[in-house]
Amino acid sequence: MRREQVFWGWGEPGAGPSLPEHARDVLRQELGVSGDVVSRPVESVSLPAPSLPNGLRERLEAVAEVRDDDLSRVLRTRGKSYLDLLASRSGDFASAPDAVVAPGDAAAVAEVLRVCGEYGVAVVPFGGGTSVVGGLAGERGPFSSLVSLDLGRLDRVVSVDPRSLVAVFEPGTRLPEADAALRAHGLALGHVPQSYEWATVGGCAATRSAGQTSTGHGRIDEQVVALSCVTPSGSLATLDAPASAAGPSLRELVLGSEGTLGVITSVALRVRRRGEVSFDGWSVESFLAGAELLRALEQDGIAPDIARLSDEQETRTSLALAGTGTVGRRLLGGRCLLVCGWQGATGRASAARKLIRGGALPLGPSPGHAWEKSRFAGPHLRDDLLDRGVLVETLETATTWSNLERLYRAVPAALPGLHVGCHVSHVYATGASLYFTVLGAQSEDPVGQWRAFKDAASRAIVANGGTITHHHAVGRDHAPYLGDEIGELGMELLRTVKTRCDPAGIMNPGKLITA
Amino acid sequence: MRREQVFWGWGEPGAGPSLPEHARDVLRQELGVSGDVVSRPVESVSLPAPSLPNGLRERLEAVAEVRDDDLSRVLRTRGKSYLDLLASRSGDFASAPDAVVAPGDAAAVAEVLRVCGEYGVAVVPFGGGTSVVGGLAGERGPFSSLVSLDLGRLDRVVSVDPRSLVAVFEPGTRLPEADAALRAHGLALGHVPQSYEWATVGGCAATRSAGQTSTGHGRIDEQVVALSCVTPSGSLATLDAPASAAGPSLRELVLGSEGTLGVITSVALRVRRRGEVSFDGWSVESFLAGAELLRALEQDGIAPDIARLSDEQETRTSLALAGTGTVGRRLLGGRCLLVCGWQGATGRASAARKLIRGGALPLGPSPGHAWEKSRFAGPHLRDDLLDRGVLVETLETATTWSNLERLYRAVPAALPGLHVGCHVSHVYATGASLYFTVLGAQSEDPVGQWRAFKDAASRAIVANGGTITHHHAVGRDHAPYLGDEIGELGMELLRTVKTRCDPAGIMNPGKLITA
Repeated sequence: MRREQVFWGWGEPGAGPSLPEHARDVLRQELGVSGDVVSRPVESVSLPAPSLPNGLRERLEAVAEVRDDDLSRVLRTRGKSYLDLLASRSGDFASAPDAVVAPGDAAAVAEVLRVCGEYGVAVVPFGGGTSVVGGLAGERGPFSSLVSLDLGRLDRVVSVDPRSLVAVFEPGTRLPEADAALRAHGLALGHVPQSYEWATVGGCAATRSAGQTSTGHGRIDEQVVALSCVTPSGSLATLDAPASAAGPSLRELVLGSEGTLGVITSVALRVRRRGEVSFDGWSVESFLAGAELLRALEQDGIAPDIARLSDEQETRTSLALAGTGTVGRRLLGGRCLLVCGWQGATGRASAARKLIRGGALPLGPSPGHAWEKSRFAGPHLRDDLLDRGVLVETLETATTWSNLERLYRAVPAALPGLHVGCHVSHVYATGASLYFTVLGAQSEDPVGQWRAFKDAASRAIVANGGTITHHHAVGRDHAPYLGDEIGELGMELLRTVKTRCDPAGIMNPGKLITA
Repeated sequence: MRREQVFWGWGEPGAGPSLPEHARDVLRQELGVSGDVVSRPVESVSLPAPSLPNGLRERLEAVAEVRDDDLSRVLRTRGKSYLDLLASRSGDFASAPDAVVAPGDAAAVAEVLRVCGEYGVAVVPFGGGTSVVGGLAGERGPFSSLVSLDLGRLDRVVSVDPRSLVAVFEPGTRLPEADAALRAHGLALGHVPQSYEWATVGGCAATRSAGQTSTGHGRIDEQVVALSCVTPSGSLATLDAPASAAGPSLRELVLGSEGTLGVITSVALRVRRRGEVSFDGWSVESFLAGAELLRALEQDGIAPDIARLSDEQETRTSLALAGTGTVGRRLLGGRCLLVCGWQGATGRASAARKLIRGGALPLGPSPGHAWEKSRFAGPHLRDDLLDRGVLVETLETATTWSNLERLYRAVPAALPGLHVGCHVSHVYATGASLYFTVLGAQSEDPVGQWRAFKDAASRAIVANGGTITHHHAVGRDHAPYLGDEIGELGMELLRTVKTRCDPAGIMNPGKLITA
C-alpha cells in the first residue's frame, strides 16, 4: 500500500514534528499573532459528483486502474502550496479530479493520454504531490472533465549500474524507496529536497528540483543522464551518453516541463557512493561576509556538499525557537549561522576549514546535527503555523555573485510589514540561490493577502535580475512572470513545442505555458 | 585585420608543424603508401559569378559590410572537414557564397536575417570556420542564392566580472583573443579545443564544443551561463542566473543549434582563474586498464583537469613518429600512454597520483610537455598527410563506463583495412568519450571511400549505444544519423522549433535538422 499524506497538510497524520511550546511567545513577539490555535482543517468535505464523458471510464479501465471514490479524488486535487493548504483546510474541493487513473506501465500511460485526447479531458500527472507552486491545481482549461494521472504504480527500480554510477527508475518511485534500493549497492541518490519523504524521481525531473546536497552532487538537471517521456503525440527517449554534441538537448526540454508536454516514464540518474557526512557550524559576522566565504570556497573548488548560510533575521528566529546554549551565545548580536556538511573523508574539507576559520568563529558539529535532525521539518511546522493564523511562505531565486546583494535587499524591501528571513543553500561558481522565508499575521482575506505579496515579491525578483524560481518550479503561481524572464520568443518556443507534443492541450492546463 | 586561414587547409601559410622526415617510413610501413608527396592543392581557382536577387545587395549594404571578391568568397565557402579539404584542394568552389555579409552588431544581424528572409536567400553563419562535419557547407536548400554571414566584426569583449567569474563575449571573438582579454583580470577561458587558434566563442556555443581541459572545467555547454540569439522571428536572451527551475532550458535549445535557428549574438561564459598546469605521464598495461583508472579518479572526485589515454594502436603510432627514448621504452610491448594535467596546486593531484601509481609506471612530466607542445598540431599535419595521399579522419563518440569496451571494439571492427587508433580525452562520472583517428591509403575515389567508411563507422556507433558526436557537432556529415539517436518525435520537435524561429528555412540549410 502506497503511503499517502493527509489531505489538509503535510505528511502522514501525527508523523511530523510540532512547534515547541515557547514558539507561541516568539510568534506573539515577532508577528503580533496570539500564538493560540485559531483555525483547524475541516473534518469532512463534500465533492461535486464525478463527471466523465460517456464511455471514457470503460476505455480507461481497459488499460489502467480507475478510482473515483471521494478520498482518492480529494488526495489528488492539488499539491501543498500555501494556497493549496488554505483551500484544502477550508474543505474546498470543487476542483477535484473526476477520476484518478493509475496506469501500470509506459504503454498504458500512452494509451491513457490517447484516450483522454480523443475525449477532450484534461490530464494532471501526479507524482509525489508536493508542489508548492500550484503545479497540481485542478485547472480544466477549456475542458469540462479532468483526470489525475497517478504515477504511483510506476515505481520500479529498472536497473542499477554501479560501474557507471547510473540507476534507472520509473517516475513514481519515491526518493526514500529509490535510496533504499541503491543502499544494497553501496550507493545513494544524493538528491535530498525538503520534500524528500514524499517526492518522486519523475516529479523531481519534471520540476528541475534541487536538494540539500546539490551544492556537492548537483541539481537534478545535472543528475539526469537520460529520460523517456510519453506525450499525446508519441514518445521521446534520450540517450544515456555522459555528454553529446548531437544538437540541442531534448533532455533539457523535458526537464522542467512540469507535465505540460507529456509524462516522464523513466529517469536514468547519476547516483553517488554512500558516505558519512561530517558537519561544521560557524558564526560569521554578517550574511554578506558569509556569502563571500561561500564564494571563495566554491571558486577555489573546495565548497562543502551541504552549505547553508542564514542571514541575521533567520539566525535570530532560529535562535529564538531553539534557545541559546553555548552555540547560541556565539551567534548573538546580529551574527549569522553557517552550516557546512562534508561527505566522505576529503582533503577538500580541511582546506575549506582553514579558509573559513579566517572569517568565522567555530561552533563545532552541533548546529549541523540540529539542522540535519530538522531538515524535513519545515512543511510539518507550516501546518501548526496555519492553525495559529500565521501567513507562511517561502520564495526562492538565484543570481550571480555580483548581483547577490542587490537582489537580497530588494525582496524584503518589497514586502513591508512582513517578517522576512533568508538563507543561501546552493552555491555555484558564478552565483548562489537565495531562499526567503516570509512570516506574518494572516489577514481577514489570506488568499488576497498572499496574491498581493507574492506579486510584489515576484516583481522585485524579476526587476532585480533574479530567476523567478531556483528550484520550486513554475506551476501556476510563477507562470505570470515567466515571460519576463524568457521573453516573448522564449514563450512562443515553449508554446510551439507544447502544441507539437500536445495538440489538444490536455496536459496540465494553466501551468508553466500559458497564453 | 582579422587573421585568415589558407583556403586549402589549416592555419596561416607555413605557420604549423610539419610531419617529421622519418614519418615517410612510418606511413609506408603502416599504411602502405609511398610516403612521397603525390598531390598538391590547386594554386588558383575559378568561381561562378556571384548572383544575388536584384536590389538585395543595396539592402544589405545599408546595414553591413558586403564583399563579393573571389578571395572573400573562397574563404567562406566551407569549413575544414576531410571532404571540405578534398574539395578545396581540387579547386571546387561551385558552392561559394554569392556574397559575404559582415554586420557590426546584433541589430544589424537581425536586419540581415530579415532582408534575406524577404528575398529568399540562404544564410550560413560563419565564425571561426573550423567545422569538421560540413557545418559550413554551401548548401542552398530550395534557394538560388546564399550569403555567408561573417561574424568577424562582432568580436568585442562585452564585460568581465571577476567576482562572479563570468565574461560576456560577442560571438566572433576568437578563443586566443578572448583569453588575452581575460589575462588582464588574472582569468582564463578554460576552453581549449584543438581548433583553439581559430575557433570563436559563438561557434563553440553553437556546436557544443569540448576542449582539452573540459574534464576539469567542463564542456562549453556547462560554461555558457547565458546567451542571446537573433532568429528571423525575433530575439531570445536567457538569464545569467547560475541555475533555474523556470521551465525547460532555452539555453540548451540554442546550444548545439549550429546556425539553423538563428545567430548567437552574445555568450556569457563561466571562466576560471589562471593557473599553471603540471603534467604526469604514465605507462599503463592496456587501454581498458587505463580506462578503469580514469573511472576510479573521476568517481573518487580526483580526476585531472586534462586526461588523455591512448590505446595500444595510438601509442604505437605516436612512438613510431616520436622515436623511443627512455619514456618510449617504458611504453613498448603493447602498453598505453596516459597523460594527466593538473591545474594549480591541488590536493587532488597528490591523491590521484597515489591511486594511479597502483596501476601504472610513472613516466615523469615529459610526455605531458610533448603533448602540450603538439596539442594543436593535428589539423596542420593533416595537410601534409593529404599531400601524401593519406586518408585521415577522426571520429568521436561517448558512452557509459559499462558500455565503453563494447563501443570501443565495435568501431574499428566496422572499418576493416583501416588503421584505427583511439584515445579517451573526456572523463565523466558516468562514462567517457572515445576519439578514433582513422588512417589509410586514399583510393582512386577518396570521396566515395570516405562516404563508405563514415557510414560504416556511424552505423556502428549508433548500433552500439554511442552518441553520434561527443564534440564535433552534427553539421551535414552526422545529420543522417541524428534521427537514430533522438527518435522521430525528437526530430519533429527540432523541426517544429526551427519552423517557428526560421519559417522561410533560410538558416544554414541541410545541416542538423533535415527532412
